[in-house]
Amino acid sequence: MLDALFSPKSVAVVGASKSPDKVGNRILANLINCGFRGPLVPINPTAKEILGRTCYPSLRDYGQSVDLAVLVVPKPAVMAAVDDCLAAGVQALIVITAGFKETGAEGAQQERELVQRCRARGVRLVGPNCLGLLNTAHQLNASFANIWPARGHISFMSQSGALMSAILDYAALHRLGISSMISLGNKADVDENDLLEALAADPDTNVIVGYLESIMDGDKFIRAAESAASRKPVIIFKSGVTQAGVRAASSHTGSLAGADIAYGAAFRRAGVIRAETFEQMIDYAMAFTMQPLPTGSRVAIVTNAGGPGIMAADAVEQMGLEISPLTEESRAAMRPHLPEAASVANPIDVLGDADPERYEMAIRTALADPTVDAVVVLLTPQAVTRVRETAEAVVRAADRRKPVLASFMGGQDVAAAVEMFMRDGIPHYPSPERAVAALWAMRQYAQWRARPPRVVARFPVNRRRAERIINRQIRMNQLQVGEVAAKEILRAYEFDVPPGFHALTREEAVEAAERIGFPVAMKIVSPDIIHKSDLGGVRLNLDSADAVRDAFDLMMLRIRQRVPEARLDGVYVEKMCPRGREVILGMTRDPQFGPMLMFGLGGIFVEVLKDVTFHIAPITREEARQMLESTRSYALLRGVRGQPRVDVDAIAEGLQRISQLVTDFPEIREMDINPFIVGPVGGVSVAADARFTLQPRS
Amino acid sequence: MLDALFSPKSVAVVGASKSPDKVGNRILANLINCGFRGPLVPINPTAKEILGRTCYPSLRDYGQSVDLAVLVVPKPAVMAAVDDCLAAGVQALIVITAGFKETGAEGAQQERELVQRCRARGVRLVGPNCLGLLNTAHQLNASFANIWPARGHISFMSQSGALMSAILDYAALHRLGISSMISLGNKADVDENDLLEALAADPDTNVIVGYLESIMDGDKFIRAAESAASRKPVIIFKSGVTQAGVRAASSHTGSLAGADIAYGAAFRRAGVIRAETFEQMIDYAMAFTMQPLPTGSRVAIVTNAGGPGIMAADAVEQMGLEISPLTEESRAAMRPHLPEAASVANPIDVLGDADPERYEMAIRTALADPTVDAVVVLLTPQAVTRVRETAEAVVRAADRRKPVLASFMGGQDVAAAVEMFMRDGIPHYPSPERAVAALWAMRQYAQWRARPPRVVARFPVNRRRAERIINRQIRMNQLQVGEVAAKEILRAYEFDVPPGFHALTREEAVEAAERIGFPVAMKIVSPDIIHKSDLGGVRLNLDSADAVRDAFDLMMLRIRQRVPEARLDGVYVEKMCPRGREVILGMTRDPQFGPMLMFGLGGIFVEVLKDVTFHIAPITREEARQMLESTRSYALLRGVRGQPRVDVDAIAEGLQRISQLVTDFPEIREMDINPFIVGPVGGVSVAADARFTLQPRS
Repeated sequence: MLDALFSPKSVAVVGASKSPDKVGNRILANLINCGFRGPLVPINPTAKEILGRTCYPSLRDYGQSVDLAVLVVPKPAVMAAVDDCLAAGVQALIVITAGFKETGAEGAQQERELVQRCRARGVRLVGPNCLGLLNTAHQLNASFANIWPARGHISFMSQSGALMSAILDYAALHRLGISSMISLGNKADVDENDLLEALAADPDTNVIVGYLESIMDGDKFIRAAESAASRKPVIIFKSGVTQAGVRAASSHTGSLAGADIAYGAAFRRAGVIRAETFEQMIDYAMAFTMQPLPTGSRVAIVTNAGGPGIMAADAVEQMGLEISPLTEESRAAMRPHLPEAASVANPIDVLGDADPERYEMAIRTALADPTVDAVVVLLTPQAVTRVRETAEAVVRAADRRKPVLASFMGGQDVAAAVEMFMRDGIPHYPSPERAVAALWAMRQYAQWRARPPRVVARFPVNRRRAERIINRQIRMNQLQVGEVAAKEILRAYEFDVPPGFHALTREEAVEAAERIGFPVAMKIVSPDIIHKSDLGGVRLNLDSADAVRDAFDLMMLRIRQRVPEARLDGVYVEKMCPRGREVILGMTRDPQFGPMLMFGLGGIFVEVLKDVTFHIAPITREEARQMLESTRSYALLRGVRGQPRVDVDAIAEGLQRISQLVTDFPEIREMDINPFIVGPVGGVSVAADARFTLQPRS
Repeated sequence: MLDALFSPKSVAVVGASKSPDKVGNRILANLINCGFRGPLVPINPTAKEILGRTCYPSLRDYGQSVDLAVLVVPKPAVMAAVDDCLAAGVQALIVITAGFKETGAEGAQQERELVQRCRARGVRLVGPNCLGLLNTAHQLNASFANIWPARGHISFMSQSGALMSAILDYAALHRLGISSMISLGNKADVDENDLLEALAADPDTNVIVGYLESIMDGDKFIRAAESAASRKPVIIFKSGVTQAGVRAASSHTGSLAGADIAYGAAFRRAGVIRAETFEQMIDYAMAFTMQPLPTGSRVAIVTNAGGPGIMAADAVEQMGLEISPLTEESRAAMRPHLPEAASVANPIDVLGDADPERYEMAIRTALADPTVDAVVVLLTPQAVTRVRETAEAVVRAADRRKPVLASFMGGQDVAAAVEMFMRDGIPHYPSPERAVAALWAMRQYAQWRARPPRVVARFPVNRRRAERIINRQIRMNQLQVGEVAAKEILRAYEFDVPPGFHALTREEAVEAAERIGFPVAMKIVSPDIIHKSDLGGVRLNLDSADAVRDAFDLMMLRIRQRVPEARLDGVYVEKMCPRGREVILGMTRDPQFGPMLMFGLGGIFVEVLKDVTFHIAPITREEARQMLESTRSYALLRGVRGQPRVDVDAIAEGLQRISQLVTDFPEIREMDINPFIVGPVGGVSVAADARFTLQPRS
C-alpha cells in the first residue's frame, strides 16, 4: 500500500545540495552510501551535478517518472516543489522541511493545502517536519540520520525525529537489526494507522514498534492496531501519560478517566504491548524479534550463581509468571552431569565453576521438559568461567521452539558474549529482572493472541423509544438528563427499573404511591439539582398516603429555602428498591477513543479508593467480566466471609447493555447508573438512579 | 575497628601456590599487581619462593607479625592453618576456602569452632566461602577477583561472590569508582552489621551499597543501618523477597505480614534506600556518590528534543517529584539566548540544533533558579549536535550545590560523553526514566535525613498489673489470651475498655448487667472459640434482666450444640460500645525484626483489600501518624463526603500504647485489637475486642 515509500524503484532529492553540511547533501549521500540500487535524481536549479549524479533544475526536467521524492527545499519553496513533483508523477513524497503546523495557524493552513494537493493526485506524503525514512531490506536511506543500522526485522515509527536518532545510535552500538524506521513528523497525511497497516503486511517486519506522543484517530487506531497485532507484535511507547489527560469532568465516570487510562484501555483492547519506558520499548522488541512466543507461563532459570537466580525468581513471581517445578525425569537426567553441590531444583544452579557443557546440558534438559515454557539463562563472570564458550553453548541449545532469554551480568568480561547473542538471536539483558520483564511481555501478547473470538452480544431492545426520548431532550436543549427521563431510556434498553411516576402535585404523588403500593420512595425532580440527597431531595420508605403528603410538602418547602433559584418539576415517586450490593456502571466518551465504560463498587470504593476499571465499548461478555474481576474489591461481589455472592452476571449484562446503548447513540456524552443495585444470584438487580449528559449530534 | 582488614600493614597468603591457575596464586598475584605497599608473605610448606617473594612453611616460621592473613588452603587444612595464624599473632583473617556451613551440619560445626578460636584471640574473620576483599584507597586486593576497579568512594558488600564479580566487571567497563568491596561469604564472624559500622566510619567511603540474601540479626541490623544512614547513604538490594516470607499465621496481623513487608518496614525505619533490582542498586549508588542531595522536590529538565522531555516529565510526576514552574526571571533570562521556537517553560527545550553554549546557559539558569532543586539534562544525538562539547558544558555548569543528572540517549555517538560524565562526576543514565528514578531515591534519603528526632513517648501505665496477667496466663499455659484477660491487659495500659464483668452463671450475668446498666453486650468466654460471632457467641443491646437471662441460656445451649468439644467459661457482660469507625490495631513479631505493628480499617479493608500498613516498634507519634496516612483508605478517617472526621490522634495513641506494651513484653508474640472503635474528635475511642498470643519467655 505504501510501496512507493518503502521500496521505490527511483528516488529524487528535491533540494539536493553540493554543500556537505546541508541536509540536502546528507540525504543524497545517505541514499548513495547505503547502496540504493535504483536511479537517484538530485534536483537543484543551479547545480549540474551533485556527488557524481546529474542534477536537474526540476523533476519535470528529468523527464522520467520517479516513485519517491524527498523534499528538503526551504519552506517558501515547498509548495512549488510539491507541484513540480505531482506534475512529474511521483507516487510518494517525504517532506523533511519544517515550518508548518508546529509553528501556528498559518503553517497549519499551508500543511492542509499540501495534503489536499497530494490527495487530489492519490499521492501519499510523510511529514512535513520529519527526519525521513529508511528501509534496510531495500537499502533505502531516505533520511538525514547518519547511522545505517544492521538489517533485521524490527520496524520503528517515531513521532520524535530526535528519538529516532537515539534509537539508531543505540541499535548501531548494540547491533540491533532493523527493517524500517519512519519519522512521522507532523503526520499531515501518513500517520500511525497507515504505518500499522503497511508494516503488518511487510514481510521484512516481524515486530512493529512505535513511539507516539498523540494518536490521530482513536477509532481507526484501535482497528489498525488490532489488525496488525493479530499478525505480529505491536509495541507502543506512549509518552505524555500524566497531567495532559486530566480533564475537569463533573461526573464520577468522567473525573476518573484520564487520557492515560483511555490509552491503557485502547491498547488492551487492540492487543498492543505497552512499553512504559524507552528501555522497555527496546527490551521488548528484542525479545519478540528474536524468539518464539511462550505457550505458557512456566519459566526455568539456569544460573552459575545463587544471587542472580534469586533475583530472577523474585521477578518471575512478582510479574505473575511461574517457576516451573521441573519433572522428576528432568531432575534425574541432570543429576549425573552436575557436581553434588549443584541444584537441580529450579533455579537450576550449575555452580560457579560451570563449564559450557554443563550449561548446554541444563538448558537442553529444561527446554525438553514439558512443564517448562521458557528458559532464562544467567551468568556471572567468575574466576574459571569461559564466558564466550558458554554463550556459544546457549546459542546451540536454544531450539527456537520455546523462548530462551539471557542475562550475562557484568561489563567487559561479558561484552563478547553479548555481541554473539545479538548476532545469533538470543535476546540479552543487563539484568535478570529485565530479561524476565521481556518474557512477561511475550506471555501477555501470546495470551492476547490466543483469546477467544470477540462476540459482542446484541440484546433485543426498544431502540426507537430511547431515540425518541433522547431527541426530545436535545430538541428542548435539556442536555442534562435527570432521573425520570434517564430511567425511561434505561427501560427501553430493558434494564430493571423500579416502577415509578412523575408527580407534579401532592395529590398526584399520593395517587402514584397508591398505584405503586406502599412503601414508596420520593425524589425531587429538578434540572438544577444533581446531588438530590445532599439537599434533602430523597425520602425513602414512605408507608402511607399521609407520609407521602408530608414528605411532598416538606421537600418542596425546604428545597425552596435551600436553593431558591432551582427549578422544581415536582417529584418522582417509585417503588422501594430491593436490598443488595451497590455498584456504579457508567460511560464517558473519551475524545480519542470514544465510549469508555466504567465499573466500580459504589460509595467509598469509587470515591475514596478509586477502585474502578474501564473498557472501550462495545464490549463482549468476557470483557465485561474482566472489568469486574480487575477491581481490587471484586472479592466482595464473589462473596467473602459473611458476604453473600451477588449476581455478577447481572452486572456484566448491565455493562453490555450500556455498551449497546452508547454505541447506538453517540449523542450520549456521559452517563452513569449510580447505584445499580445487585441482588443475589437469581434475584433482581435494578437501576436505582441514573443520569445522562447528551450532546447534539454533530 | 576492622582496620586490620581494610588497611593492614602486612598480608600473608596462607596456601599461596606457584601454579598460575590456582586461587592461591591469583590472590598473591592480585596483591602484588594492585600495588600493595607492605610486606607480602606467601605461606606454603613446599615452595621456597612464589612470584618473587620468599615463601615460608608456616606463619610462625616467618617470625614477624602480620596484620592480615588470607587463607586458601584445602578444607582439611583450614583449622591447623588458622591455629598457626592465631599463634603468629595475626589481627584479621579472610577464609576463602569453602566447605563449611553451606555443606550441612558438620561444616556448620567446624565453622562455629573456627569462629570460637578467632574470637578467643580477639581476631576478626571474613568468610569462610568468600571471594575476599579489596580496598582501592590502600591498594589492597586480597581477593581472587581478576578486575581492579578505579578508585572511588562507593563501597560494596555482597553476600554473593558471583555478584561481586559482576559488579567489578560492570564497574570496569563503565569506569565506576569503588572504595572497597567485601565478599561476605558465610558471614561466620564479620557480617553486614560490622561492615555497616566500619564503612560508616571509613573516610574513603561516601556511599555504602549492599547485596544481601539474609540478615543475621534484625535488631542489630536496624541499629547499625540507622547509625550508618545518618552519616552516609546506605543502599541495599535484598533478594529473595517473594514466597520465602509467606508464613502460615493464624491472625490477621500475622498472615498479612510477610518477610518482604518486614524488610520494607525495617529499611524505612533505618533510612536504608531500597534497590528493587540490580540496576537500581548501581543507578542509585552513582547518583549518591557523585552529586549533592537535593533540598526539595522541584526538578528542571533541559532537553534538545520534545520526546525525551515528555518522558522525563512523566517520570517526575509518577514518582511524586515536581516539575518546577521556573521563575519569571529565569524565563526572561533565557529568552534572548534561545531561538523563538525554543521553550523556556519546563521542560526547557533548547531545540535540536542546540549548541553547547545554549545547554550551559539553560543549566546555569535553572540551577540559579530558587524554585529548582535539581536539574536533569537530556540529549539525543541529532544531525548538528556536538555531543562531546555539550557534555563538557554540562560538567562546567554543574555547581555541586544542587544535583545534576544526565541522560544522553543513544549508543556510539554518546559513548565519549558518557565516559566524560563518569570521569567528571555527572551521573549518567541510558534513559530519562532511570535518571529521574535515581533523583527520587536521593530525595527520599534527603527527607529521611531531615526528619525530626525520633522521640518515643512513654505513657504512664500499670506495667506490673499487665505483667501479673501475662505471667498468670503463661503459668497456666493459656497462651491464647481471650477477650476477658486481653482487656485486663489493655486496661493496665490505659486503653479505654467498656466496663464489663466475667459471669459464670445466668444470675451472675444479670447481676453484672445491672451493675453496668442496660443495654449491655454479652459474649461467650471460651479458650477454644476465636471467631465468637460466627458461632452465635455475641449478643448486643440486651436491655433488660430478662433479655440477659434469655441470651445466656440460648448462647450456652446453641454453642454446646454447635461445638460440643469447646470448653465454655461463662460469658463476658459489658457496656455497649459507642458507635464509630472500626479499625484494627495489631502486632506480629517478625522472626528477624521483632515487633511489627499493624494498622488497617476494619472489615473488608483488611480482609479483602489488604489495605494495611506496618511499622517496627517502638514507634513515635509521627510514625504512628504515617501508618494511618499510608493506607489507601485514610481519607475515610479524615472525613470525606458525608463521613465525619474521626479522632485520628486516638488511633495514633493506641498504636503507640501497643508499641509500648509489646516492647515491654517480648512474651507477646501476636495481638490485635479488632475492632478498635474510634469516635469523632473529642469523643471516646474504645477497644471493643482483643486477643493476644503469648510465648514463654526464652
